[in-house]
Amino acid sequence: MTVSRPRPHPAGIRRREALRVLLRGAGLDALLVTDLVNVRYLCGFTGSNAALLVHAGDDAAAEDRTVLATDGRYRTQAGAEAPDLPLLVERACGPALLAAAAAGRVGFDSAQVTVDGLDVLTAATDGSGVELARAAGLVERLRAVKDAAEIDALRLACAAADAALAGAIADGVLAPGRTERDVARELEDRMVTHGASGPSFETIVAAGGNSAIPHHHPSDAPLAAGDLVTMDFGALVDGYHSDMTRTVLLGPGADWQRELYALVDEAAAAGRAAVAAGVPTADVDAAARAVITDAGFGEQFVHPVGHGVGLVIHEAPAMSATATATLETGMTVTVEPGVYLPGRGGVRIEDTVVVTGSGADTLTASTRDLLVLG
Amino acid sequence: MTVSRPRPHPAGIRRREALRVLLRGAGLDALLVTDLVNVRYLCGFTGSNAALLVHAGDDAAAEDRTVLATDGRYRTQAGAEAPDLPLLVERACGPALLAAAAAGRVGFDSAQVTVDGLDVLTAATDGSGVELARAAGLVERLRAVKDAAEIDALRLACAAADAALAGAIADGVLAPGRTERDVARELEDRMVTHGASGPSFETIVAAGGNSAIPHHHPSDAPLAAGDLVTMDFGALVDGYHSDMTRTVLLGPGADWQRELYALVDEAAAAGRAAVAAGVPTADVDAAARAVITDAGFGEQFVHPVGHGVGLVIHEAPAMSATATATLETGMTVTVEPGVYLPGRGGVRIEDTVVVTGSGADTLTASTRDLLVLG
Repeated sequence: MTVSRPRPHPAGIRRREALRVLLRGAGLDALLVTDLVNVRYLCGFTGSNAALLVHAGDDAAAEDRTVLATDGRYRTQAGAEAPDLPLLVERACGPALLAAAAAGRVGFDSAQVTVDGLDVLTAATDGSGVELARAAGLVERLRAVKDAAEIDALRLACAAADAALAGAIADGVLAPGRTERDVARELEDRMVTHGASGPSFETIVAAGGNSAIPHHHPSDAPLAAGDLVTMDFGALVDGYHSDMTRTVLLGPGADWQRELYALVDEAAAAGRAAVAAGVPTADVDAAARAVITDAGFGEQFVHPVGHGVGLVIHEAPAMSATATATLETGMTVTVEPGVYLPGRGGVRIEDTVVVTGSGADTLTASTRDLLVLG
Repeated sequence: MTVSRPRPHPAGIRRREALRVLLRGAGLDALLVTDLVNVRYLCGFTGSNAALLVHAGDDAAAEDRTVLATDGRYRTQAGAEAPDLPLLVERACGPALLAAAAAGRVGFDSAQVTVDGLDVLTAATDGSGVELARAAGLVERLRAVKDAAEIDALRLACAAADAALAGAIADGVLAPGRTERDVARELEDRMVTHGASGPSFETIVAAGGNSAIPHHHPSDAPLAAGDLVTMDFGALVDGYHSDMTRTVLLGPGADWQRELYALVDEAAAAGRAAVAAGVPTADVDAAARAVITDAGFGEQFVHPVGHGVGLVIHEAPAMSATATATLETGMTVTVEPGVYLPGRGGVRIEDTVVVTGSGADTLTASTRDLLVLG
């Protein structure tokens, strides 16, 4: 007979080991991980209430002292998802882990813990010899560089979005009379058909004048001949988020629409071409922005060129004009310039790309040629 | 010709007026509102980056000093959703509003602002005479009591979920061979057909042994004859979240399943019967829990009896054994006892109810009789 044994989470072990190096560099004895995405990244547990305590030592004993906390609802799930970790069952996970921690300097995520939350953590260390220290962004720094399995998940997520768009176009969904909401729903359903667990964020479908609103919510407004239709959407696969925007034209359209499209397409190409290891992310923004600014539309490109993407739709590295990050091999980012003319319409073109040893691969494969439909 | 004029948001004006009373009671000159749901509640703006400054005075001048801040992406949307408010366009909304605030004691949401975020706010007040003061939960206190329009939205959200379940049952979706994920998707699609903008949270469908996992993620596991199938799902209408759980039985099932169902049904009825204005929420928990504990399953009811529900799926009032809230007319809460037998299965029955002048109305209308399907 087969004895079922706990299956450790090999990526989690590797990631906790990498985290320990950062902890030692930061002079910490341990880190209290309270952000749920970081907990998932470090051990595989996906429940909605959890914290993880990771110790800094460089021997096996440090790994053996890793503890996951969650509440009673998730006891069974924690055993299935993180079978290699001892489990502390408490509703107030962070304080419980701190109360059980040995004396020492324990980092907490000051970018995630609230002012009130810090009071609760501080009270839990009372008399324990634990000293709390600010430690934001350590796990995020690891998360910014994806491993092969993460990039595979992102590839599948991008492919699901590509397939959804291709199917919607083939089936005539992008046609006058259909509503923005119809189109959003078709894209979301089709992504699930193609392997997504769901959309990676609320799908944006913005037609006609609405396409001038970068983050428009789909309405019951029908698409009309002559509209620019911007679709910004993505798929969730294994927790990883794809992100793509395509703008199509219904009917032959006007010259200004084609010119605007060509301009944004050129800016997007310049942005993607700038993506490579060692390049400051601000330079990617500058490369795309220069094309648009030179054409006189700088004021109408009202957002950063992109963002890191992975277990969260917006994550490190930041990709704005003022960002200080530098691209590294394995980072996955979006490149998404847009120009918005209030009351008339807008164009945005966005791809998800991965930084490789020799530049970048674009994971979203839908054509960027202007599609004139209907 | 008709001149189009900004249309104020009457509920927003009323809510800001009510908030000003709380601010004066708390000795604050103003409140910096940074939680996005609170911003939406107070002025109607739904963008993903915003803050609102509300002054405490009791005259029209105080209302006139209300300022909304958001970034350039949302300029057009802010003009449409909150046309009655002056707009400050800045990416760092909170600091920008503080820098523009007059001297005085300005509350910030210490339950939402992070430790790092407070540093940024504090820096923005440098030399301005603004003194920051902790002020958590003020808007949440207002939000806990719904007005008629909010209850209407919740009614529609509950009706969409009811219709989705009824349709799925009528169309034979709950049948051996279909997967948990299939069922989740059917419910979510059908809610949209019935007027929802989407699901109000990630739908739970848990069959057989999985039904013992309170927050199970739908898998590709097929439903089988003899399974208990728990579905916990809700619809989003106008930003308001419904929340309902039903457990059905595929095939005739076993005595223990029917007995477990009858027990949880009795506990849920006891919980709903306890809901009335003036009742401590802990008493609602106790009413449902007593039924389950008396039957010897107290240890297997591993979560609180419910939670407030509205613009957020879990909001005030808390409904646990240790909660200190008291029900008021207009509060909307869930009542959702469950019993979970690891490896065997579980039952949860959940309704969304509104506290009325004479007790409570149950907004979710799907039958609680045990449905034996397939």
